[in-house]
Amino acid sequence: MVDRTRTEHLATWAANLRYSDIPDDVVQKTKDFFLDTLGCAIAGRHHPAVNAMARFAVQMGPSNGNSELIDSALKFTTSPAFASLVNGASSHVVEQDDLHNRSIMHPLICDKATVIFPAALAVAQDLKSSGEEFITACVVGYEVGCRVGEFLGKSHYERFHSTATGGVIGVAATTAHLLKLNAEQTLSAIGTAGTQAAGLWQFLMDATHSKQVHTGKACFDGIFAAYSSRDGLLGPRDILEGPKAMGVALVPGETNPEAIDQNLGVDFEVSRSSFKWHASCRHTHPSVDALLNLMQKNNVGFDDIESVVTRTYQAALNVLGLSGRGETVHQSKFSMGFVLAIAAKKGQAMITDFTEEDLEDASLRDFQNRVTMELDADIDRAFPEKWQGTVIVTCKSGQKFTESVEFAKGDPELPLTREEIERKTRALAIYGGFTDSSKVDQIIKRAWNLEHEQDTRGFVF
Amino acid sequence: MVDRTRTEHLATWAANLRYSDIPDDVVQKTKDFFLDTLGCAIAGRHHPAVNAMARFAVQMGPSNGNSELIDSALKFTTSPAFASLVNGASSHVVEQDDLHNRSIMHPLICDKATVIFPAALAVAQDLKSSGEEFITACVVGYEVGCRVGEFLGKSHYERFHSTATGGVIGVAATTAHLLKLNAEQTLSAIGTAGTQAAGLWQFLMDATHSKQVHTGKACFDGIFAAYSSRDGLLGPRDILEGPKAMGVALVPGETNPEAIDQNLGVDFEVSRSSFKWHASCRHTHPSVDALLNLMQKNNVGFDDIESVVTRTYQAALNVLGLSGRGETVHQSKFSMGFVLAIAAKKGQAMITDFTEEDLEDASLRDFQNRVTMELDADIDRAFPEKWQGTVIVTCKSGQKFTESVEFAKGDPELPLTREEIERKTRALAIYGGFTDSSKVDQIIKRAWNLEHEQDTRGFVF
Repeated sequence: MVDRTRTEHLATWAANLRYSDIPDDVVQKTKDFFLDTLGCAIAGRHHPAVNAMARFAVQMGPSNGNSELIDSALKFTTSPAFASLVNGASSHVVEQDDLHNRSIMHPLICDKATVIFPAALAVAQDLKSSGEEFITACVVGYEVGCRVGEFLGKSHYERFHSTATGGVIGVAATTAHLLKLNAEQTLSAIGTAGTQAAGLWQFLMDATHSKQVHTGKACFDGIFAAYSSRDGLLGPRDILEGPKAMGVALVPGETNPEAIDQNLGVDFEVSRSSFKWHASCRHTHPSVDALLNLMQKNNVGFDDIESVVTRTYQAALNVLGLSGRGETVHQSKFSMGFVLAIAAKKGQAMITDFTEEDLEDASLRDFQNRVTMELDADIDRAFPEKWQGTVIVTCKSGQKFTESVEFAKGDPELPLTREEIERKTRALAIYGGFTDSSKVDQIIKRAWNLEHEQDTRGFVF
Repeated sequence: MVDRTRTEHLATWAANLRYSDIPDDVVQKTKDFFLDTLGCAIAGRHHPAVNAMARFAVQMGPSNGNSELIDSALKFTTSPAFASLVNGASSHVVEQDDLHNRSIMHPLICDKATVIFPAALAVAQDLKSSGEEFITACVVGYEVGCRVGEFLGKSHYERFHSTATGGVIGVAATTAHLLKLNAEQTLSAIGTAGTQAAGLWQFLMDATHSKQVHTGKACFDGIFAAYSSRDGLLGPRDILEGPKAMGVALVPGETNPEAIDQNLGVDFEVSRSSFKWHASCRHTHPSVDALLNLMQKNNVGFDDIESVVTRTYQAALNVLGLSGRGETVHQSKFSMGFVLAIAAKKGQAMITDFTEEDLEDASLRDFQNRVTMELDADIDRAFPEKWQGTVIVTCKSGQKFTESVEFAKGDPELPLTREEIERKTRALAIYGGFTDSSKVDQIIKRAWNLEHEQDTRGFVF
């Protein structure tokens, strides 16, 4: 411990983790995120960014291989680097993948499922790894990716898309584990991954496609790092804390060095991550949960509601306050009023609940106009450790109801049930034009049985 | 001009440049650098980093294609992305590729040949582009890559390997030009390239292999950016000066915005770049030139010399002062005394002139001990616009001679002749184990005739 760097400690842990070291609840949660990611990839498979990247895979990659595109429109198999390039893009594009919202220092910077699972699946298929090996490698990569993201911290996140910059290192660790690299080779892979770390937020300025590029390329680049390390390419030994490394070059503010290796093998980041349950902006989720609870408890229907006041935290007002009316399906998910209207009318706000037709629905638009947001000082103080929400509903009858939630549904404290994950997966698959429901049954069954699978091929292809 | 950004201006220029717009001296210099890069790639083909990356290409890429590895030990053809990945690594590994040392603000940050030519060759082979198209695309990419490097400036260069971070954008522009993308698509390619920009100096701490990763991946990533832009992937429109773009995220100090588009089409960066003539550290070059001139002019032989004093600038003392005795061939190139000993004894200091045997040569070691370095205030003041050097030789006879050079050989003011470039190429090829000298003759002949070639395939493979 004294003589080695934190990066060496992390790499050694990553190389040595065994399936039997992983607590069962972590195994189960890993399977939950895996199925969730598969659903996201199927939902995103028709996006133009995904299609462009798939065409690159067709042109530049082999015409066949052991690794499958996750039910892409283009049915072909390829090498793991290219399969993960495309799957890493498709699983991120509908914005329904995981997040990590509880960390005090740096909320929202751990959403690594979209890179770890696509890369792990592609490599495991190539190497014919077992379900147990797959799960172990995913736990390794998720842990490494999240810890690097936490190390890089908030000021990094303001400039860089840390899903990718931490993610590429997580992918390298996952791939290294599947390749059975030793600690030295894993350290080398982490180094080569880190020197490729990239991803800027500039795409937010004009809604261009870099977000998918970042996750797809994080997969590709992390796989490159691990395979080339196996074949003798040496990566820098301390790409995190070295004098010319990521902490210096990519972090304008403070890093969190202890995040690299504190409580390794005791805490598992998978257990601290959240699912996105509703398909809207995450900042609407506590209010949606509170409203749905309120309506159910008090037997209030969509048509009974005269007005809604939501009490929330400042960060939600900052983001949602800019949304306007919501002229497109995407924009409408950032309007608190419209999202609550959808939830109230449909009883849920899943990806298939936001449609072009809904944008023209006068009853939804009318409801939207009767929703107001207010800052709540207590809720704001508790954020981001707790994503709380309170709604106050005034009914046309004059009755008034109030309901609060302490956590958003999908948070570690309020996890999705298996049944809910299945529902979300089915909605994502339908959104992706996946018509064969028996195929979805089979995917779900295999995911829940993952640790007993001898092979991860043929999963959804 | 008023309404468009500098980045748009640059992209439009890049898309629209035609062969007939390029002055003949720029065409000739481009061919010089192309041949020089081929030689470097052949010399670097056996390096472990190159081999590891080539194995990745074999495993992840197609088993055949139109693009050739530049006389790699592994004889196979592949897709342009993978060919350039390997060639971009091999052409950088022996450190004999170009540099740009004159710019006042930011010396030594424009060495783009190692990414532009490998990428351009691989793509041109795939698209069956003509020699004229190839040259035009190289001029475009060299210009864009160097200008981005100059925009990012000195503080960026202290943290990032700008050969790669500017280079990836140059490669995207080169590839876009060969693909005949329009200005909007080229802008998109530049944006997608820039959001992938990466490359940290941490590898310097432990002499690991990232330098080759950076150049190889800059080729791959830039090609990805251009091909995917052609297929509909949208990149951010202002990846240089936007509020979340490279200038903000990757530059801790000042940027040089005017470098992006000032005098576009009038100045050509190719004309401002330098060759490396000697195989030693660049900071030894003015002294080597001065010593060789002195010995020739005054008919002084190796054995006649009692002692040498070299007068140089502070930056040279900073780098060379750390070198020690030079225990390995690589280290010996950073010892002023050893380098001058080699030059004095062999009459040159080319890549084949530094060998394991020389390290054990007592006459060289003895000469090395009789060389001292001194700071020269005038020379230091002129640096880095001028890389001057003065040597004062005291002969065993008691005679004293002094010689100064104003520029290093290979600088734009003192360019290599075609004969010298051929000599350097032959030395590089021999170093790379390239035994067939008639093949080298053919490469040289084709390079000098490049604008008349209908096709760039079969160049060296």
